[in-house]
Amino acid sequence: MKRPISFSIEKKDSVSLARAATLHTPHGDIQTPAFIPVGTKATIKGIQPMQFKELGIQSLIANTYHLYLSPGEELIERAGGIHAFMGCNAPIMTDSGGFQVFSLGDGFGKKVSKFIPAVVKPAPGVAVYDEELATSHGKLALVDDEGVSFTSHLDGTLHRFTPERSIEMQHKIGADIIFAFDECASPISDYEYQKEAMERTHRWAVRSLSAHRQNVDKNNAQGLYGIVQGGRFEDLREQSARELGEMDFDGYGIGGSFNKGDILPILEVVQRTLPQEKSRHLLGIGEPEDIFIGVAAGIDTFDCVLPTRNGRTGALYTKRGKIDITLASFAEDRSLIDEDCDCPTCTQFTRSYVRHLYKSGEMLGPILGTIHNIRFLTRLTDCIRESILNDNFQSFRDEFLAEYRSSL
Amino acid sequence: MKRPISFSIEKKDSVSLARAATLHTPHGDIQTPAFIPVGTKATIKGIQPMQFKELGIQSLIANTYHLYLSPGEELIERAGGIHAFMGCNAPIMTDSGGFQVFSLGDGFGKKVSKFIPAVVKPAPGVAVYDEELATSHGKLALVDDEGVSFTSHLDGTLHRFTPERSIEMQHKIGADIIFAFDECASPISDYEYQKEAMERTHRWAVRSLSAHRQNVDKNNAQGLYGIVQGGRFEDLREQSARELGEMDFDGYGIGGSFNKGDILPILEVVQRTLPQEKSRHLLGIGEPEDIFIGVAAGIDTFDCVLPTRNGRTGALYTKRGKIDITLASFAEDRSLIDEDCDCPTCTQFTRSYVRHLYKSGEMLGPILGTIHNIRFLTRLTDCIRESILNDNFQSFRDEFLAEYRSSL
Repeated sequence: MKRPISFSIEKKDSVSLARAATLHTPHGDIQTPAFIPVGTKATIKGIQPMQFKELGIQSLIANTYHLYLSPGEELIERAGGIHAFMGCNAPIMTDSGGFQVFSLGDGFGKKVSKFIPAVVKPAPGVAVYDEELATSHGKLALVDDEGVSFTSHLDGTLHRFTPERSIEMQHKIGADIIFAFDECASPISDYEYQKEAMERTHRWAVRSLSAHRQNVDKNNAQGLYGIVQGGRFEDLREQSARELGEMDFDGYGIGGSFNKGDILPILEVVQRTLPQEKSRHLLGIGEPEDIFIGVAAGIDTFDCVLPTRNGRTGALYTKRGKIDITLASFAEDRSLIDEDCDCPTCTQFTRSYVRHLYKSGEMLGPILGTIHNIRFLTRLTDCIRESILNDNFQSFRDEFLAEYRSSL
Repeated sequence: MKRPISFSIEKKDSVSLARAATLHTPHGDIQTPAFIPVGTKATIKGIQPMQFKELGIQSLIANTYHLYLSPGEELIERAGGIHAFMGCNAPIMTDSGGFQVFSLGDGFGKKVSKFIPAVVKPAPGVAVYDEELATSHGKLALVDDEGVSFTSHLDGTLHRFTPERSIEMQHKIGADIIFAFDECASPISDYEYQKEAMERTHRWAVRSLSAHRQNVDKNNAQGLYGIVQGGRFEDLREQSARELGEMDFDGYGIGGSFNKGDILPILEVVQRTLPQEKSRHLLGIGEPEDIFIGVAAGIDTFDCVLPTRNGRTGALYTKRGKIDITLASFAEDRSLIDEDCDCPTCTQFTRSYVRHLYKSGEMLGPILGTIHNIRFLTRLTDCIRESILNDNFQSFRDEFLAEYRSSL
């Protein structure tokens, strides 16, 4: 039986763990290394799907937590799945919702004394709430070994995710690549808690995998990635990569928030431990400098909200670093955002005009800024891929970063 | 000497005043009847200039008042004019700013007791303020025979426009078609005031024309339209059309707010009076039903903010009338916004998805809605033009309106 996701490595770097490969999905191939823009609510903010190809967007990653809350995974399933719902035939990923439950889940920990106010309507199937546990837990969501209870950031209603529920929702949404449900502990959690969360994540990984493999139709149509956790602790990361690596996942996500300085050693230990022939996705990290670190440590795909979020606020990438296009110094700058960029913004509009749009509160500012930022990153990963294929990744990286950091 | 604007009529309707024509401008031709989207601050809200052609956008109309306030006409001039500033080679019009001065000018009349608060910084060249006159005037801006004083809607600073100043600004902005500075009286003004405002508009028309013709470079590069006023009074409209028609304008705008019921008889008297061989632009009116009325009365071009504003709020045109896409009844409507429409929105996305985008506060909702609304109108005027050329304007109109009104 052919698996829905396969991965073929074309070239490995001789110095680092970098590799150029192709990730095959039911909706087409992704040439890696690749930047995967975030499309939380089934849309990359500000980008028209008609422009994906022109912008080098090969895929996007949507979010189970957000789509569950609105419009609901059932509606998406009735529409024929997320590709039909969005009118998009590109490969799509969905994050499991674990990270959002912990980072957005409201009411637990932030102001625990206000927990379950009168307006909260428990959702169907919600666990019985143990106030003592919640108030003593001190986190943004209430975790138990079975799953997580949390309140919606939209309306304060109470909800519960378990690994089985996350997989069920991701089946209904129908992305090409889905993720196991994990606990993403805080980057400042101590060793003991990180170990506990990691071990729970592993038990949830087994349950996620089992829920996925049992649904034969979905198992043949969607690939499931496990998520390596372990925070900033190398031994936990090694253990996580080893234990998950022994499970039959179609690929691996590397989760958790870290300090930027911790990324490289952690990724390296993870990547040397994970099965080499499966693809690796770095969750939530993907600005230009991070991408070089990730690629050198064997990461194949990246997602990150910053390129789109920066695009909306006017922080735009250039080969000489990020600029704040709203600054007065750009008011009459008639050069392009980035003279080397081939995006529609940079082939047609001056910094002066783009700044005017942001300063006037015109939608076209964030649209053009987002177009540019996304293309900057897809072009960067395209160039990185080219450099790996041509055996000059190190020199490409050194030259790019020297110029990128030159304005600092 | 060849004039920058010329106009050639290809076919006249045998029943109504409708005509199919071509308006030649320094930046290319506009096939008429045409809908001209509003690009107030040098951008059609939500639309990428790269898509103008695909959406049938032949031209846009920007606004002198807004561009004067930000980024300033001097900056646009230094950029090489509005085409270079915007990165757009299409024909562009600018409204004179008269309407905005009267409709947005703040501080006069609205709360006159707060007029010239401590924060107001008089702008250079501003007239001395006569408080008694201002407080007794009861309008949104202070008009005298020389010009208009008003405060900025952005920061309350005091400014002054005269016909000469409006033309000077429009020269610096550099659109293909510019408009004489006019007084746009309130639609509820009485006969006496409408007559006074119209006569002042005529004196300002002479001054606008003189300021334009005296600047030889600009006179050879930009065309100037006079603006017919006179409110809802047919005799004033006839007088205005006659007096302005005798002046050497390159075309004519029809200004003023009217009640929808007044439009047809007024337009007819205006159009029969204006020179037949010059083009006529209906300022600020251009929803589907209005366009049929205007075309039948000899209007060649239309602008209106509603199609873009409706696009942002989710009021979308269909051949069976306008729908509010945010209604719950569209949550699972997997049909297209308008099955006959050839816009990118209607060839790719369901009502269900578009509704989800609006309900989620995603930018792509207003973007796709605006794309559709604009294309709906450019396609409508394309079809109207075709019907005039084929001598079946009346039957096309009757069929379109019967279906358009069928859902009411």
